[in-house]
Amino acid sequence: MELKYQGKTKDVYELENGDFLLKFKDDVTGENGVFDPGANTVGLSIEGAGRAGLRLTTFFYEKLNEAGIKTHLISSNIEDATMTVKPATVFGKGLEVICRFRAVGSFLRRYGAYATEGQQLDSFVEVTLKDDDRLDPPISEDALAMLDLLTKEEYAALKDATKKISQFVKDELAKKGLELYDIKLEFGRDAKTNDIILIDEISGGNMRAYKDGEYIEPLELEKIMLAK
Amino acid sequence: MELKYQGKTKDVYELENGDFLLKFKDDVTGENGVFDPGANTVGLSIEGAGRAGLRLTTFFYEKLNEAGIKTHLISSNIEDATMTVKPATVFGKGLEVICRFRAVGSFLRRYGAYATEGQQLDSFVEVTLKDDDRLDPPISEDALAMLDLLTKEEYAALKDATKKISQFVKDELAKKGLELYDIKLEFGRDAKTNDIILIDEISGGNMRAYKDGEYIEPLELEKIMLAK
Repeated sequence: MELKYQGKTKDVYELENGDFLLKFKDDVTGENGVFDPGANTVGLSIEGAGRAGLRLTTFFYEKLNEAGIKTHLISSNIEDATMTVKPATVFGKGLEVICRFRAVGSFLRRYGAYATEGQQLDSFVEVTLKDDDRLDPPISEDALAMLDLLTKEEYAALKDATKKISQFVKDELAKKGLELYDIKLEFGRDAKTNDIILIDEISGGNMRAYKDGEYIEPLELEKIMLAK
Repeated sequence: MELKYQGKTKDVYELENGDFLLKFKDDVTGENGVFDPGANTVGLSIEGAGRAGLRLTTFFYEKLNEAGIKTHLISSNIEDATMTVKPATVFGKGLEVICRFRAVGSFLRRYGAYATEGQQLDSFVEVTLKDDDRLDPPISEDALAMLDLLTKEEYAALKDATKKISQFVKDELAKKGLELYDIKLEFGRDAKTNDIILIDEISGGNMRAYKDGEYIEPLELEKIMLAK
């Protein structure tokens, strides 16, 4: 297999049959040793973080596949911290789709004149460009269409899928007494069917969850979610 | 009359009959002595800039009023650099509506991964919040609706009016051999009729115009536009 890409939290290999292998690393995003799901830098490395992220991703993606929501997951090997996935192409150089149930993070930094911290948001969806150099700028439906990144129909489909998946994750967290504040998803086009599918991962590092108003760190979140 | 607000380029007075008086100042936005219509600070002061801005605004608003597009203009007094306007309320603490015909400025800073400098844009409209502390963040149609700033219907009306007004200005500039790259408009609700009307100003400081690929400074633009 061939190393195709080294990401901040995952390395990507191409397998001989055309599928891909994601190797989950123990690095998590953040700044100055503090975890921040919105950060663009690796803030710290935590023993076991990769495997825990993979276990939670596998938990969600298997349930989503069962529920008829398409993901890139083929199989996971927890011991090796690897996930075999379908080949998919991203939109442009990659988009992040964020769903917000409460106002925190960059939403609050941008719109703090009209929103208070923790204020309920109605599963608000927004898209940002994956572009570290330009600080992952938010981009509108109109701009995505004009720059040939997403048609209006694809935007509507992505928004709809994002709301469904995010509500699904929110409900799963609620079963363990956790409240989902926001979550970041990535989508791609299945290289074989051209369907829009959920790619990347859904782990503690992709979301902000709270318990009784207290923020829960990703590793703690994964421990709570995966406890028997 | 009573001073109600001191802006970066205009002061606002309330008249005894309930109308408002805008006093155009000689200050223009920019940084370090260089004009920049996207800047949030007063960069320099130029003798006669206020009167020139008022003359161009009056030129456009009279023509727009004639064309059936509602503006807040009642009358102008060029000598005093003042414009009498209808009372209007802004959306939230104020929105700026930008129409882009070519990729420059903050659009290019945000979306430079997918656009080249000067690339043609199809009268692309975007909204930013007037919020100096948060660097006038762009805001989507969905976020404007969720934060109760604009209904979806109001957004559609604003977008439509922005395209019409911007095309009108673009055509007027073209008559003088200038090309409009982008323009920033402000709207409000007429306090008496509740109609959405064009407020603020349309002067050199609200737009970027080029001649044969060369950027034209606001005062030079106003001189070219108002030459007999």
